[in-house]
Amino acid sequence: MNYEAILQEVYQEAKMIPTIGNVSTSIPELSKVDPDKFGIHLTTIDGEDYGVGDCNEKFSIQSVSKALTVALAFSFLDEKIWERVGVEPSGSAFNSLVQLEYEKGIPRNPFINAGAIVIADMLVTHLKNPKQDFLDFIRLISGSPTVDFNFKVAQSEKDFRFRNAALANFLKSFGNISNDVETVLDFYFYQCSIEMTCKELAHAFFFLANEGKTKSGVQVLAQSQVKRLNALMQTCGFYDESGEFTYKVGLPGKSGIGGGIAALYPKNFVVATWSPRLNEKGNSELGMSALELLTTKTGMSIF
Amino acid sequence: MNYEAILQEVYQEAKMIPTIGNVSTSIPELSKVDPDKFGIHLTTIDGEDYGVGDCNEKFSIQSVSKALTVALAFSFLDEKIWERVGVEPSGSAFNSLVQLEYEKGIPRNPFINAGAIVIADMLVTHLKNPKQDFLDFIRLISGSPTVDFNFKVAQSEKDFRFRNAALANFLKSFGNISNDVETVLDFYFYQCSIEMTCKELAHAFFFLANEGKTKSGVQVLAQSQVKRLNALMQTCGFYDESGEFTYKVGLPGKSGIGGGIAALYPKNFVVATWSPRLNEKGNSELGMSALELLTTKTGMSIF
Amino acid sequence: MNYEAILQEVYQEAKMIPTIGNVSTSIPELSKVDPDKFGIHLTTIDGEDYGVGDCNEKFSIQSVSKALTVALAFSFLDEKIWERVGVEPSGSAFNSLVQLEYEKGIPRNPFINAGAIVIADMLVTHLKNPKQDFLDFIRLISGSPTVDFNFKVAQSEKDFRFRNAALANFLKSFGNISNDVETVLDFYFYQCSIEMTCKELAHAFFFLANEGKTKSGVQVLAQSQVKRLNALMQTCGFYDESGEFTYKVGLPGKSGIGGGIAALYPKNFVVATWSPRLNEKGNSELGMSALELLTTKTGMSIF
Amino acid sequence: MNYEAILQEVYQEAKMIPTIGNVSTSIPELSKVDPDKFGIHLTTIDGEDYGVGDCNEKFSIQSVSKALTVALAFSFLDEKIWERVGVEPSGSAFNSLVQLEYEKGIPRNPFINAGAIVIADMLVTHLKNPKQDFLDFIRLISGSPTVDFNFKVAQSEKDFRFRNAALANFLKSFGNISNDVETVLDFYFYQCSIEMTCKELAHAFFFLANEGKTKSGVQVLAQSQVKRLNALMQTCGFYDESGEFTYKVGLPGKSGIGGGIAALYPKNFVVATWSPRLNEKGNSELGMSALELLTTKTGMSIF
Repeated sequence: MNYEAILQEVYQEAKMIPTIGNVSTSIPELSKVDPDKFGIHLTTIDGEDYGVGDCNEKFSIQSVSKALTVALAFSFLDEKIWERVGVEPSGSAFNSLVQLEYEKGIPRNPFINAGAIVIADMLVTHLKNPKQDFLDFIRLISGSPTVDFNFKVAQSEKDFRFRNAALANFLKSFGNISNDVETVLDFYFYQCSIEMTCKELAHAFFFLANEGKTKSGVQVLAQSQVKRLNALMQTCGFYDESGEFTYKVGLPGKSGIGGGIAALYPKNFVVATWSPRLNEKGNSELGMSALELLTTKTGMSIF
Repeated sequence: MNYEAILQEVYQEAKMIPTIGNVSTSIPELSKVDPDKFGIHLTTIDGEDYGVGDCNEKFSIQSVSKALTVALAFSFLDEKIWERVGVEPSGSAFNSLVQLEYEKGIPRNPFINAGAIVIADMLVTHLKNPKQDFLDFIRLISGSPTVDFNFKVAQSEKDFRFRNAALANFLKSFGNISNDVETVLDFYFYQCSIEMTCKELAHAFFFLANEGKTKSGVQVLAQSQVKRLNALMQTCGFYDESGEFTYKVGLPGKSGIGGGIAALYPKNFVVATWSPRLNEKGNSELGMSALELLTTKTGMSIF
Repeated sequence: MNYEAILQEVYQEAKMIPTIGNVSTSIPELSKVDPDKFGIHLTTIDGEDYGVGDCNEKFSIQSVSKALTVALAFSFLDEKIWERVGVEPSGSAFNSLVQLEYEKGIPRNPFINAGAIVIADMLVTHLKNPKQDFLDFIRLISGSPTVDFNFKVAQSEKDFRFRNAALANFLKSFGNISNDVETVLDFYFYQCSIEMTCKELAHAFFFLANEGKTKSGVQVLAQSQVKRLNALMQTCGFYDESGEFTYKVGLPGKSGIGGGIAALYPKNFVVATWSPRLNEKGNSELGMSALELLTTKTGMSIF
Repeated sequence: MNYEAILQEVYQEAKMIPTIGNVSTSIPELSKVDPDKFGIHLTTIDGEDYGVGDCNEKFSIQSVSKALTVALAFSFLDEKIWERVGVEPSGSAFNSLVQLEYEKGIPRNPFINAGAIVIADMLVTHLKNPKQDFLDFIRLISGSPTVDFNFKVAQSEKDFRFRNAALANFLKSFGNISNDVETVLDFYFYQCSIEMTCKELAHAFFFLANEGKTKSGVQVLAQSQVKRLNALMQTCGFYDESGEFTYKVGLPGKSGIGGGIAALYPKNFVVATWSPRLNEKGNSELGMSALELLTTKTGMSIF
C-alpha cells in the first residue's frame, strides 16, 4: 500500500471540505489555537512513518489522554477497574451529570469526563508521584523524552474548572473518589494539558496496534488487554458520536477537544490527526473526515 | 377555638402513630439527635402562644432556613430574584442535578438545594457581613437574641459537602454563581446550621401570617410579597412531597431534614413542629401527621 | 366589593396587554377559533353573576374538564383514586412520557394527560353509560341542560390521537388501564370536546368554592373532598406553570388549551376566563393576566 | 483451526456455567420454551458447517431479525435510512420512550424497538407484499425455503402489544411513521416471530462476513454497506449491553429475547447460538458466555 500517496490524497481532499465548526472555547488557552492547522501522521506496524501537513507541531491532546490513563491503570489494576466505572456508551454529552445521578456515581465508561476522573483517582492512589510517573509513561510509549505538560493550559483548566469540579464532587458524594477532590482534579488537568505532535501521538498509540508492545519493543499491556481497550475505544471513544465514527471510519480511536484524534487498525497501522475546528459533538471535523477518507481509500476497516 | 386543647389532642394522637423513618444521617452531627423528640408550638395572629412536648428545645432548622433567606433576598431584590431561579415545583429530589442540567443552571425554585445556593450567592453579594447580617435578621424576626449558628453542625456540613459542592460548581459553570464557590457554600452551611426552638421558629415565621409584620411590629416584607412567598412555599416547600403536603394539610410551609416544619394559616396562626424521624422524601413523619391532624380538627385550611 | 366595575377594569386593562401566543394547533378543529375572543364571568358565593366580553360564547373546555372528571371519580372512589395516580406536580410538559417511564406507569397527578386518561379509565369502569353519564353530571353542576360535546372536535382529537394513544398504550403496558385502550381514549376525547360558555363554566365550578354544593344546592362532594381537590388544582392545575400561576394569582384553578381557565376563591367566588391565545406552556395568556389583575385589584388570594 | 473441537469445548464449558436468568415472559408464547435448550452453529467463510447441541431446533429469532430488516431496507434506501433513525448507542433499555421524547421522535439506532419500528415502516412503504417479501428475503439469504413465521407468536405479540403500540404511536405523533400504525405493528410482530435453527441463522448472516454475498453467491449488499452494518451491530447490537459484548467478545452481532445471537468475524466465520435464559439486560446468558469462550480460545477478534 502506498501510504505516502494516500496520505497526500486524503490531506488534499480533506482540506477542500468546507468546515463550519470552530476551536474549543471551553478554556481561554485552547481558544488561542490557529483553527486552520491540519496534520496527519501514520505509522505502519513495521515502523514506517508517513506525515503530512502540520504533523510535527505540538498541540494539546486533551481527552486523547484518557485512553492512555486507562492503559496505565489497566496495566496494574486489570479488570478491577470495572468495579468503579462501566464499559457502556453513554448516549449523552461528555460532561453530563444526568446519567451519573441515575446510575449512583458509577460513570458509564472511562472516556466521558466523570469516568476519566475516576481513573485519575486510581492513578493518584497507585502512583508514587502521579503527575511525573504518568508523564514518564507517556514518554516511554511515545519514545519521545520531550513530551511535556503545558502549564498554562493546566492552569487555564483549573481557572475554569467548575463543570469538572461538579463532576468530581458528585462522584465523591457517591463514594467513588478516594483521594482529595482537589488532588484528583489537579492530576486530571495536567493529564489533559499534555502536548504532542501527530507523530508523537501515533507512536504513543502504537502499542495498541501492536499487541501491547511499543515501537521500541516494551510490552506495556497484555495482548488480551489491548483487545479490550481497543473494543472500548470503538464503542465509547468519541463521546456521543462514537456510533457515527464507528459507522463511518470503522476503527477504534480516541478524540480530544484540542482537535486531535488517534486511531488504529490492529496489526496494520496507527494514525493521528490534528485539526482544531470541532463539530457540535466536540470532535475534530476535518480529523473525522480525513479518517473516513483514509479507510475508504485503503479499504481498511476492522469490519 | 381552644388551641390549647386541640394541640394536646394532636400531640397525643400523633404520638400514637407508628413511625418507620429515622433521623437524617446526611451529616454525622444530625444523626446524634434523639429520634423521639417531638414538640409543637402554635402562635395565633393575636400573639397567643401554645406549646406542647419538646417545643422549647433547640434543633437544627436546616432547610427551613431557606424560606428565611428568600424572605431577606426578596426584601431588597424583589422580583429580580426570579431572573436566576424559578418558581416551579421540581418533581425531583431536593439535591438532584438532573433538572439543573436540562434547564441550563436555573434552579426550578429557591427551596431545592440548588436554588437555595443561588439565593445564598445573592445574600453574599448584597450583605456587608453576610453570616452576621443574616443571623441578625433571624434574631429580629424571631424576637430572640439568643438564636445562633451551631458551629459543629456547620463544620460537619462542610466535611460532607460533596453533593452541595457539586451543585455549587455546576451552577458556577452555568454562570449562575457570582461569588467564590467556597464563600457561598460557607454561608449556606452556616445558614442551615441555625438552631431554634419550635417557639422561636413559629415567631420567626409570624410575619408571613401577619401581612409582612413581625410579632414585634416590624414590617419586613410588603403584603404582596408575603402572599407570593406563601404561594411559593405551598407549591415547593416540601421537596417532591409538596403536592402531598398541600393535599393533606392545605397550608403553606417549609420543612428541614433536622425534623422541623414551619407552617401558617394567613391571618390566623403560625405553627412549628419538630420530630426528627424522616420519611423517604426527607420530611418529618410526625410533623406532617400532626399538621394534618391540626387542620382536620380545626377545619382550618386555605382551600 | 364592586365586582362589576372591577371586572370591567380587568377586562379593559387585560385587552391592552400585547399578546404573542397563538391558538392551539394541536388539532385542526381548535385552530379555527378566532384568536381574539376574550370573555370573563364571575359568580359570587351568593350567586350573583358578573360577565364581560365574550362570556356567553361557547368554547372547547378541553383540559378544564380534567378537574370535573376527577370530581366525579372522587365522588364514588374517594381516596382510592390515589392508588393509581399521584398528587405531585410533574415538573414536565402535560404530555410527557418521560416521568411515566421512570415512575412505572403511575402518573404524577390527574391533570397531566396520562393522569386524566387513568381517571377516564376509572369512569369507564364505574359508569353505566360513561359519556352520557359524565355529560349529565356536567349539566347538573353547571345547571345548564344545553351543555354538550362537540362531535367535530372529538373526531379531530381522534384523528390526531397519536400522542394520547402512546400514553394510553404505555399506561396499559404498566397495567394501569383496565379497559380497552380504544374505549378509554374515546371517552377521553369526548370529555375534552365539551363546550361551555364562561358563565356555564363558572357555574360548573361553583361547588368547589361552596363546600361541595352546586349553585342549585346539590351536594356533589364532601367538604373535605372539595378542599383536597382545590389543593390539587393549586399545585398541579396549570401543567408546568402551576408554580407561576400560584405565585402570581394565588387561587386554585384549571386551564385548557381551548383557552379557558376556571379558578375560585373558596367561600367567595368562582371565575372563568376565555382567550384562545396560549403561551408556550399551553395556558391562556390573557386569561392568566386577567386573573392576576383580578386578585391584585381585589386583594383576594388564599395566601 | 479445528473448529469442531473448539465448538465442543466451548459447548461443554459453557454448559457448566451456572445461569441465573430465565426465559422471556414478555409474551406467553415465548415463556413456554424449554429454558435449558442450548445450541451453537458456526459456518466458516469457506462454507464449512460445525454444529453442537440443539443447533437444529427452531426458535423465535425475535430481535435478531432487526439486523435483517435493516439489511433489506439498506439494500434499496442506502444512506437515506439515516434521515429517520440514528446510528448511536442508546444508553437505555431496548423499549425506552425517554430518549425518543428528548430527541423528538428520531430513534437512536435501528436495533432498539423504536428504531426497528421505523425500519418496519420503511419496508411497509417499499415492499409490495411486505410480510411475504421479507420472508422471501430471509429464505433467500438463509438458503432455507422452510423458514417461516410462527403465527401463534405473532398473535401473542399482538395481544401484548401495549409497549410497542406506545412506541409506534409516539413515533407517529412526531411524524416518523408514514403508514397506518396498525399495519406497521402487524409487520413488526410477524418479523419478530420468524423461527430458525442456529444453522439457518448462521447461514442467513453469512453475507455479512462475506462482503455482501450469501453462501449461495447472491450479492445482497455492497461491500461498503456490509462494513457499515457490521459497525452498527458492534456499537448497538446488544441494547444497553453493547459495550460489554464488544469488550468481552469483540465481534459484531445481534441478539434477541428468544435467546438467539448471531455474530460474525468478517472474512472468517459466522456463528449463531441459542439459549433462552436471559440476563437482566435481555440478552442470552449462555450465548454471551459461549461467544466469549469462542473468541478467547480462537484468539479471533476484530480488535
